[in-house]
Amino acid sequence: MDVQIIIGSISDKEIAKKAVDVLKEFGVEYSVTVASAHRTPERVDNVIKEAHENGVKVFIAIAGLAAHLPGVVASKTVKPVIGVPVASNLDGMDALLSIAQMPPGIPVACVGIGRGDNAALLACEILGTGNGSMQEKLRKYRTRMAEKIEKDITL
Amino acid sequence: MDVQIIIGSISDKEIAKKAVDVLKEFGVEYSVTVASAHRTPERVDNVIKEAHENGVKVFIAIAGLAAHLPGVVASKTVKPVIGVPVASNLDGMDALLSIAQMPPGIPVACVGIGRGDNAALLACEILGTGNGSMQEKLRKYRTRMAEKIEKDITL
Amino acid sequence: MDVQIIIGSISDKEIAKKAVDVLKEFGVEYSVTVASAHRTPERVDNVIKEAHENGVKVFIAIAGLAAHLPGVVASKTVKPVIGVPVASNLDGMDALLSIAQMPPGIPVACVGIGRGDNAALLACEILGTGNGSMQEKLRKYRTRMAEKIEKDITL
Amino acid sequence: MDVQIIIGSISDKEIAKKAVDVLKEFGVEYSVTVASAHRTPERVDNVIKEAHENGVKVFIAIAGLAAHLPGVVASKTVKPVIGVPVASNLDGMDALLSIAQMPPGIPVACVGIGRGDNAALLACEILGTGNGSMQEKLRKYRTRMAEKIEKDITL
Amino acid sequence: MDVQIIIGSISDKEIAKKAVDVLKEFGVEYSVTVASAHRTPERVDNVIKEAHENGVKVFIAIAGLAAHLPGVVASKTVKPVIGVPVASNLDGMDALLSIAQMPPGIPVACVGIGRGDNAALLACEILGTGNGSMQEKLRKYRTRMAEKIEKDITL
Amino acid sequence: MDVQIIIGSISDKEIAKKAVDVLKEFGVEYSVTVASAHRTPERVDNVIKEAHENGVKVFIAIAGLAAHLPGVVASKTVKPVIGVPVASNLDGMDALLSIAQMPPGIPVACVGIGRGDNAALLACEILGTGNGSMQEKLRKYRTRMAEKIEKDITL
Amino acid sequence: MDVQIIIGSISDKEIAKKAVDVLKEFGVEYSVTVASAHRTPERVDNVIKEAHENGVKVFIAIAGLAAHLPGVVASKTVKPVIGVPVASNLDGMDALLSIAQMPPGIPVACVGIGRGDNAALLACEILGTGNGSMQEKLRKYRTRMAEKIEKDITL
Amino acid sequence: MDVQIIIGSISDKEIAKKAVDVLKEFGVEYSVTVASAHRTPERVDNVIKEAHENGVKVFIAIAGLAAHLPGVVASKTVKPVIGVPVASNLDGMDALLSIAQMPPGIPVACVGIGRGDNAALLACEILGTGNGSMQEKLRKYRTRMAEKIEKDITL
Repeated sequence: MDVQIIIGSISDKEIAKKAVDVLKEFGVEYSVTVASAHRTPERVDNVIKEAHENGVKVFIAIAGLAAHLPGVVASKTVKPVIGVPVASNLDGMDALLSIAQMPPGIPVACVGIGRGDNAALLACEILGTGNGSMQEKLRKYRTRMAEKIEKDITL
Repeated sequence: MDVQIIIGSISDKEIAKKAVDVLKEFGVEYSVTVASAHRTPERVDNVIKEAHENGVKVFIAIAGLAAHLPGVVASKTVKPVIGVPVASNLDGMDALLSIAQMPPGIPVACVGIGRGDNAALLACEILGTGNGSMQEKLRKYRTRMAEKIEKDITL
Repeated sequence: MDVQIIIGSISDKEIAKKAVDVLKEFGVEYSVTVASAHRTPERVDNVIKEAHENGVKVFIAIAGLAAHLPGVVASKTVKPVIGVPVASNLDGMDALLSIAQMPPGIPVACVGIGRGDNAALLACEILGTGNGSMQEKLRKYRTRMAEKIEKDITL
Repeated sequence: MDVQIIIGSISDKEIAKKAVDVLKEFGVEYSVTVASAHRTPERVDNVIKEAHENGVKVFIAIAGLAAHLPGVVASKTVKPVIGVPVASNLDGMDALLSIAQMPPGIPVACVGIGRGDNAALLACEILGTGNGSMQEKLRKYRTRMAEKIEKDITL
Repeated sequence: MDVQIIIGSISDKEIAKKAVDVLKEFGVEYSVTVASAHRTPERVDNVIKEAHENGVKVFIAIAGLAAHLPGVVASKTVKPVIGVPVASNLDGMDALLSIAQMPPGIPVACVGIGRGDNAALLACEILGTGNGSMQEKLRKYRTRMAEKIEKDITL
Repeated sequence: MDVQIIIGSISDKEIAKKAVDVLKEFGVEYSVTVASAHRTPERVDNVIKEAHENGVKVFIAIAGLAAHLPGVVASKTVKPVIGVPVASNLDGMDALLSIAQMPPGIPVACVGIGRGDNAALLACEILGTGNGSMQEKLRKYRTRMAEKIEKDITL
Repeated sequence: MDVQIIIGSISDKEIAKKAVDVLKEFGVEYSVTVASAHRTPERVDNVIKEAHENGVKVFIAIAGLAAHLPGVVASKTVKPVIGVPVASNLDGMDALLSIAQMPPGIPVACVGIGRGDNAALLACEILGTGNGSMQEKLRKYRTRMAEKIEKDITL
Repeated sequence: MDVQIIIGSISDKEIAKKAVDVLKEFGVEYSVTVASAHRTPERVDNVIKEAHENGVKVFIAIAGLAAHLPGVVASKTVKPVIGVPVASNLDGMDALLSIAQMPPGIPVACVGIGRGDNAALLACEILGTGNGSMQEKLRKYRTRMAEKIEKDITL
């Protein structure tokens, strides 16, 4: 398994779906589970341990509010951890700051609010650093994306 | 020991000092240690475990930036956890949101940015819920405080 | 009565309901009333006085906008006061700052925006500091909560 | 006495000084005192009561952080209350919201962060509603102010 | 006429309605008009001039976005000007800052976002500074308001 | 005269200096004056009128706090108005919103906080729309700027 | 062609429509296209190059989130670039800052969040600097706008 | 070369230094250069192209204000791009949002404000995904870091 996705709450499922859709498109092996940094800290530990045993290369942690999940995962692995802030009361500003503003020593790679898709793409880029065929897939993905966007419009 | 103070970084020492000054004034037994939720997660676990063995009644966790320490402590104890946000880049707004916006199920009692003193007073109030003499001390403290404040001034 | 809940406006009723549901689950005696720090200051005084007479141990004050209610209650008791910010125009940021940023000397325990449930859990934790059976109930609550969360999902 | 100035803390003295300088210039009778909404609530009550006995027409309440003082004063008088937010950790944004975002029914007239001068001018304008000579003074003040500002500069 | 209400756009009508309802209840003479500081600056001048001729005592200016209307009115009168921020894109934070943060010399009395009601009550308080019967009405209004709020609730 | 610079307060002089330095470099005729939208509204009118008589093509209005100056100028001219927010209490966020969030119908071209230099460059670009030699000067300016930036560094 | 409108995503179409409506009313020649600074950077280059060949005088770039489009366009032209922030998660605050806070040397003229209409009016003002008849049209537009606004209302 | 560091301005040098110190400690080959997304867009293109030729695996882009550099780099490579926001006027909030809030399709890995050190550690983690010895170094780094932090303190 290459990518372990952890969501802090079942209500973050939709954001995880965006990541999964991308990973599927790239043929990346992944696993998704629910584990809350605050409500099930031991489960988070177990998920990380098992993921390590399964050869995980990248973690994606998705959480809202005081979103500690990405930081907690990062504190227990030296694999890259991508954090996805989820919007609730404060439009996701709380989650964004809780994920981005990590202290020195333990990095988290924060992407935009609700951007499960970009988290997965970043994971693919990381997997691609030592994998030419993944890089090729990413370039093709961008070409397809560009083709969809490029058009004049009449208003 | 009644109160365990944990600071996320030695740079938060000054805020802990404000708490300690109050606890001393109230004759509360306390212990202070440095343990980072992100950089020394196992140490945090050990500090909590030891504190439990020593009969801790309240935790005070002091941290800045993506301040996960109070939440991490709260996830591993059913004793009340008081969180103190510390100001850095964003004036402490990041720490305030990281501490206050806890998800349902795991409460943290957040006090004001840099307010180690209020964290200690809140701890005393909690200790006082079953302790008439502590309540009396708190009332006297307030009277002394009020006497210092009450004055007309000439401008 | 162990916990006095005060809401600043009848429109905050739903948040109080979240607190009540938790307190009921824990078998905690409570009372709920409406009293506005600004519109009925005398009533707030009377509610506090009566609560004291009834042996109140913890206050929960719920308010939005320039949410002064928790601070006003805190200024008139040495029992722990838990403040719950309620969202309106500014998503609750105004209430959060009005509750969390208390000056030195008068602490309020601020929980997350709209988190009546966490306010009640914090109250239980405070009641539990001198009550082993309450602590046991809290641990069981967490186990039940964890069991609900823990699951792999298929996406 | 026309204007009662109350500051929440002796550290707000400088902002009060700005108000006093203006009131002196306009020959308005005033009194200044320190009284904290949170730390000396009874004193606030007494100051308001005494001010009423002395025929006060306008209150100016100056406070920082969770600045409840103006709202507390407003809740106990039907005289106009002018609130002045004072900057601390969060540049005064906390005090501004705590003063401006009053609930329906109890108005506070909020001026800019640290603007003791404008609070005093607003008080003079209020005193001037039934006082032609005060209005005349205000117009002259504006003329003098304009004369100081109006100039071309060479850069 | 005692109170001139100016709204910056017809879309702010609902907020003006809240003010009007209060002024009617207090028997205050008022007038409402639409005049935009930016789109009809001359009209604003004319409204102010006419209001002066009609003996206006207080202005209420209601505006959203970069809400300059209250400041523009204040720059052309020495009568008290009450500003009401209206919410749009940024929840009214833009309007709040555009109204509250006036420079030294030209005060505006800012009330809460969308609080036309409080603007009217503040106007009544200002009118009441030299009018005992208005003060009496205000006290009765508060009593009625308190009676509506005061009740225990069952949850 | 091509560009009229207006600063809301003599304390904004330094930001105007940044604009002037650029305009000089481009050989653009300009004039600088102090005129406050709030404290000297008539002077603002006169400055605009005179500027029109002198064939002004672009206005640059520089102001802090509730920065109404650019909007007020824009309301009285159909020439392009560039607004420069100046930082004070709230780091310039108040001025930025007061300038950028103009209502429909009256545009202001807002540049970054304190960016007098960019205001002047934008003015040159506007003057350059019908002036090939100005466009050439702008391209050369960019080349010089790029040459200063382009370098590897050793760390 | 006088004005080239670029939108960063087809979802920003509605804001472009507001601009187009104004440009049509003023008889300005324009073109609209979709080109993303991040997803189709080469297309952005081509659009700019072609626009230059077609004699473009002003660019309007419309984008949300980390809205780099206006800055990217500005970095590749010395024609004036008007940036329009589009609201999404954070109400457009992210786009506003991404557009307004340009570094020294490369100006962007930022208008309000979602203000395609004002972007077009600003473009007309810029086109009008050397075009008396356009200025006349702008004055008439303002007169018509004022006539629509000016009315007393009965509440 | 494994890591290409690009800073948007020579004034961001200090943040780059933090990254370099970490990369040196881990024996990672790197290069640092200055290239502004806005002022030297062609140079950015060239730096990216050359970096690709030199076998770059990860980019670190450091920028303040409307910090487009990381996004611009990301738009032209499928290698992972780490963005570091730099604080200026608005404490770095502008740069944070300009980096984190990337649109769907082009990810940037945002770290905390001023956190050059964490950017480098994240780069090492990414390099370590296919490199057991790098992972070992990272684990040892954490152990050393933890040893420095772990201590009781006496207050």
